[in-house]
Formats: sequence, C-alpha cells, structure tokens
Amino acid sequence: MSIILYELCGADESHLFSPHCWKTRMSLAHKGLDFTSLPTSFTQVPKIEDGATKAVPLIKDGDTVLSDSYEIAKYLEDTYPDAPTLFGGEGGIALTNFVINWSQSQLHPLIGGLAMKDIYDILADEDQIYFRSDREAKIKMTLEQLHDGREAKVEMLSKALLPLKLMLKSQPYIGGESPLFADYVVFGALQWMRMTCTINAMPAKGEIADWFNRLLDMYDGMGRSAKAAA
Amino acid sequence: MSIILYELCGADESHLFSPHCWKTRMSLAHKGLDFTSLPTSFTQVPKIEDGATKAVPLIKDGDTVLSDSYEIAKYLEDTYPDAPTLFGGEGGIALTNFVINWSQSQLHPLIGGLAMKDIYDILADEDQIYFRSDREAKIKMTLEQLHDGREAKVEMLSKALLPLKLMLKSQPYIGGESPLFADYVVFGALQWMRMTCTINAMPAKGEIADWFNRLLDMYDGMGRSAKAAA
Repeated sequence: MSIILYELCGADESHLFSPHCWKTRMSLAHKGLDFTSLPTSFTQVPKIEDGATKAVPLIKDGDTVLSDSYEIAKYLEDTYPDAPTLFGGEGGIALTNFVINWSQSQLHPLIGGLAMKDIYDILADEDQIYFRSDREAKIKMTLEQLHDGREAKVEMLSKALLPLKLMLKSQPYIGGESPLFADYVVFGALQWMRMTCTINAMPAKGEIADWFNRLLDMYDGMGRSAKAAA
Repeated sequence: MSIILYELCGADESHLFSPHCWKTRMSLAHKGLDFTSLPTSFTQVPKIEDGATKAVPLIKDGDTVLSDSYEIAKYLEDTYPDAPTLFGGEGGIALTNFVINWSQSQLHPLIGGLAMKDIYDILADEDQIYFRSDREAKIKMTLEQLHDGREAKVEMLSKALLPLKLMLKSQPYIGGESPLFADYVVFGALQWMRMTCTINAMPAKGEIADWFNRLLDMYDGMGRSAKAAA
C-alpha cells in the first residue's frame, strides 16, 4: 500500500507550495517510495486523520501516522533501512538539526517576508481569512505592511545564504557527493519561495543556483515540474 | 610516540588562543590521544617542519604531517577508528563542512572584530609587525579603527548564534547526545574569543552558555584551564 502524504495546497489543488511538505516529498522520492499526495488546505489540516496534527506534512504509512518532516525522515530511515540513506549515520541525524534551525531562523523569516502576501493571494477564500488572522498576529503588522519594501530582503537573503554558498565550493551537496535530508531542508525553503514569490529572489547563477537546479532535476524533475511563481 | 601539535601562541608561550588549534586540541582529547604541544608564534609558523604549512594547527603523527583542523579530524577518524568517533559516519563528515562554513562566515568576522586589537596586544614584538600588516591589508582599516565601537558587535554575535541556541533547545550538543567535531568547530571560535577579547561578549546564561561550559569542563577541564582574557 502506497504511503499517503497530506500536503498543503492553495486554491488550486495542484499548487503544493509548503517548504516542509517539499522536505517530505523529496525524502519519499529519495527513498524510492511510492506515495499518494492528498492536497490539503490550511483550514482542512485540523480535520485530517481525526485531528492528528496542526500542521502538514502528515504521512500515513500503514498504521503509522506521523507529522513533522524531520520526524518523518527519521521514521523513513528506520523503517526503510535498505533504501538510500537520508542521513548517512547518527552524526548526520544530529547535525541535520543544526541545518534545520539555521534554515528556520535565517532563511524562513526572509522568505516569509518576501512571499507572505503572495501566499495569501493564492489561497482559497476561507483559508485567506485564517491565514491573514494567524500571520498578522505573529508578525504584528498587516500582510500589506510586510509586503511594502520587501525588495530589501532579496539582498538580505543572498547574504543569509553565504554559509551554503561557501560550503558548495568544496562539495556538491550538504550531504557530500550526493544529497541527504539536510539538502532537502534548504531546498524546501527555496522551493517554497520559487513557487510563491512574485519577485525572483533566487540567486540567478553561482554555486547555490547550480545546487538548486540539480535538486530541481532529481527524481524525474519532480521539483521543476512544480510551477514557479515568477 | 606521542603526536606533536604545533599551535599558535602569544608572547607568553602558554597563551594558546587560536580557534583552529583548539578544534584540533579537542579532537585529540576526544580520541584519547596523547599529544605534545609545541607553541608556535605567527612568524615561526612558516619555519616548522621544513615549511610544511602557512598556518597552524599542524600535527606530526609518525611520518604524517598534516594541517587544517578539518583534515586533521578526518585523518584521526580514519587512523584511530576504535577511539570515539568525531563525525558519527559519512553524513556527519559532510554536514560538518556546513557547520565550518557557518562558523567561519557568521561568527569569525564578528569575533575578529571584537578581539583583533586585543590579539595584537598579546603578541611578541616581531609577530605584532607581521600581524598588523597582514590583518590591516585584509580589513582595509587600522586595528584601532576596527576596535572603535566594537561594542555593537556583542549584540550582533548574540544574534548570529541564534541557530545554535535554537538547536540546543532540542539536543545537548551539535553532535546529539555527546559532542562531535562540529561542536569543537564552534567551541574553538568561542574559546578564541574567551581567551583574547577584553570585553566579555559570551552569552552569560542560557543554552549556549550551558553548552560552552560543558565543553570547557571536558577532558579534565582542558578548555577551562586556559586563562580567559575578560
């Protein structure tokens, strides 16, 4: 039986833009596992699998129901040990948590600032009401205020990516010669931006562009087949 | 035969303050390997082991002469596989390169800005001449100009450490339940600051302070026995 992947969608169900869901999509593809995608809007999330989660991705694999892309990746590693590794050992599992916290604290606030109003614009009506209320409480301003002057964040994002850019000068992936889950963590953030942000803030060339393009092409171009916003 | 570790010193040969040498000191202690420290000043470095290196640490282990703390850690992992691991597998080796580039690009410029004039002040006369000339060419200002207004960098450093602080909320070390070389990479940067900077820029409490204190206490308090500057 194929694994079920609940993942976030916009008003258009084919618009699967969540960074965290992309981390899990890439993890499943990396392990060579079949999965069935169930597009889920923001306001549907609390209703899936009897209220199992507040956030997607959520996977259902037989009797196992699990959320959080890092927890899912560790579960897949334990459950499918003969498929290609997502971590390359215990050290890789631990250090991935550093990459997650780096991406979450250094990249996500900037990408959120660049794309939050754009994300609002692609949601269904009932999701827009939830999203505006939830996000405006968190950012303590309106989506429109966040949107104004967002261009400055393009350069800030380029600077925030410096550790990755420098590292890619000596190895092709965070995982070394081939990608690991840590690569998908950062890929997820940039794919989220690629799919939602109406200004193009992606480095156009150089180490990061090359790395991102290689990941977009993997697994029969799964990432590239997702339509870019800009 | 004990491994020889050439490491940087100030005018006082017991003042071993280099971040990169601390990475190797901690690596050798982690592996439980005896080593003989040979304090080496900046201007002596090009003369050691027949000009084998432009920078320390340099180790000599039998016939093997090797510089660069990451290369040394990988060598120790290969050569002493039965001693505690420094990487926890291939994934750990690869992801450590991300932590190195993060520390080098996000922490080192700030710590350098905080401590460079202080480092100058603890060097022997001939090293001061080299250090001022070399560093002022790199930073395109005088050491005194860099020193002025350095207080602003204390808060910037605290912000730069955020990914580590957040990660430490869910595990005690970058390496997981116990430290790996990745921990020593960041420890080295902060120990460099602790030993040289005449204003105290270390977080006084919280996750990072606790983590740093645990590392200072390891290996019979090897790190703590090195005198703090402030």
